[in-house]
Amino acid sequence: MGEFELIRNFFAAAPCAQGGEGVALGIGDDCALLAVPPGEQLAISTDTLVAGVHFADPCDPFLLGQRSLAVAVSDLAAMGAAPIAFTLALTLPTVTTDWLGAFARGLNLMAQNCGVALVGGDTTRGPLSLTMTVFGRVPAGLALTRSGAQPGDLLCVGGELGNGAGALPLVLGQRMAEAAIADPLRAHYWSPQPQLGLGMALRGKATAALDISDGLLADCGHIALASKVGVQVERSKLPLSKALLAFLGQSGAEQAALSGGDDYVLAFTLPPAELPSLLADGWPIHVLGRVVAGQGVTLLDADGHDITPPIRGYQHFRETP
Amino acid sequence: MGEFELIRNFFAAAPCAQGGEGVALGIGDDCALLAVPPGEQLAISTDTLVAGVHFADPCDPFLLGQRSLAVAVSDLAAMGAAPIAFTLALTLPTVTTDWLGAFARGLNLMAQNCGVALVGGDTTRGPLSLTMTVFGRVPAGLALTRSGAQPGDLLCVGGELGNGAGALPLVLGQRMAEAAIADPLRAHYWSPQPQLGLGMALRGKATAALDISDGLLADCGHIALASKVGVQVERSKLPLSKALLAFLGQSGAEQAALSGGDDYVLAFTLPPAELPSLLADGWPIHVLGRVVAGQGVTLLDADGHDITPPIRGYQHFRETP
Repeated sequence: MGEFELIRNFFAAAPCAQGGEGVALGIGDDCALLAVPPGEQLAISTDTLVAGVHFADPCDPFLLGQRSLAVAVSDLAAMGAAPIAFTLALTLPTVTTDWLGAFARGLNLMAQNCGVALVGGDTTRGPLSLTMTVFGRVPAGLALTRSGAQPGDLLCVGGELGNGAGALPLVLGQRMAEAAIADPLRAHYWSPQPQLGLGMALRGKATAALDISDGLLADCGHIALASKVGVQVERSKLPLSKALLAFLGQSGAEQAALSGGDDYVLAFTLPPAELPSLLADGWPIHVLGRVVAGQGVTLLDADGHDITPPIRGYQHFRETP
Repeated sequence: MGEFELIRNFFAAAPCAQGGEGVALGIGDDCALLAVPPGEQLAISTDTLVAGVHFADPCDPFLLGQRSLAVAVSDLAAMGAAPIAFTLALTLPTVTTDWLGAFARGLNLMAQNCGVALVGGDTTRGPLSLTMTVFGRVPAGLALTRSGAQPGDLLCVGGELGNGAGALPLVLGQRMAEAAIADPLRAHYWSPQPQLGLGMALRGKATAALDISDGLLADCGHIALASKVGVQVERSKLPLSKALLAFLGQSGAEQAALSGGDDYVLAFTLPPAELPSLLADGWPIHVLGRVVAGQGVTLLDADGHDITPPIRGYQHFRETP
């Protein structure tokens, strides 16, 4: 048995590969089989992370396993899908038991956290990279797409912005900070929490949604383009964490929130009448703008002046400050 | 817009990305959506191909696109699934329009051939590799797994063996041959034809099935292990092509057929009573052995003597002759 076959057996034995609701057949055959209840559709998303491009090389394999899966599952949240399963294509230059064990522990933890089962994949030799494909289910017609925003809708997000991008200088070892600042920022970066519950709660309510990966302004641009509307963002309403403000100051924190990316918080558009019941249910929703007729994204200051910067999304960590 | 965003738009505009039966939402949102008819399950398989490991670098991008998808879709055939869609995670060191255009043409051709729509993926910068995840549907309970073979079943394959592995010295430029020999072997290597029709015809008939990628003996070992049976292969019954025999001689052709891999022909076990109707329907089925009580794979010569070699599957092209 070759070492890569050993790895396949290793993953097949992992706790997250022991099946789950909706998994009719897991690892070990030519295909996995998923059951999709009548009236529901299967949601699918694929993400690739390359060493030296999307994450530092070397990096902590536990944290890498945890974060990679969270980033992928966040796309299910953005669609309002209930998570089912994922596949992992892992390419490794060399096989070390320590690395694999730590990676699998991080993966297992996040898989348990998100309720997804590992159902297949491939393990190959080559430069370190990972491709994860995630699967969820959503009632037909209720998936949250990017294309339904209407003038008059509110622009909302599901949590604080900028923490992921703000953490980057800490993650890359370029800056230091006291634990009270560094710990929450690092935690957000390495262990983002896909907003699966919020996504499902928004079914039939939000008119458009996505998860913020490129940066608020760039991602609002995706909604504006797909929905053929304009989106106005009010800078004074950005939800910023104490840790981010302490670390970067007001202006730096705003910059991270607007253009930094890596938030994996949902951004969505909502008819105003839908807001009260969602807030009453306790969902952490921040209103930071609105949808208007027109096109593109406009950033407004507290006086309503247009202060839109050139929009430039997240372009992999090497190119960010 | 960055060059990788341009690539995403390029693939979104490809003919194979324009939807198909079962595709409720294609490229462009956080997730794609597939519709699975009531009573059916979704079959999923993932394959990674790394430059310099699974294919020569550089290689013809048209042929790479064609072959990569065929290899992935072959797993749907092995499961008896009807093809629906695929995702493509493509990692590229540099972006050249010529390379991408040729790759996409090969991909489109095979996608059309197999009836699969491109519904998503990711394009990233890094060392050249591809991960394809393919999706099909199969009535619940009728998927062809590896685990149902019974003593008394016939061991069958769906076509000639050894052509893929036999072609390798030609593909790598290590040997030359006249066109009458080289052309059919090269065609088999670069454009394997997933046996989707045969796979579906075997639903409810074959007791176990897979597609031969590791080599006949190694893959029969997978069936033996999963089904807890023994498998006997008769060397004299191996279906060998004229081109392969002319190129490698009897012994070399047998070796390629037994251990070469890269065939992407179905191997399956069949109760004898099921054979006549399948043959009457014109399926190209070769009987080359049988399932027995016991374990493992045994190779028999024409006199019934055990001539089993140490079984060693295909281990990427660099390690084959």
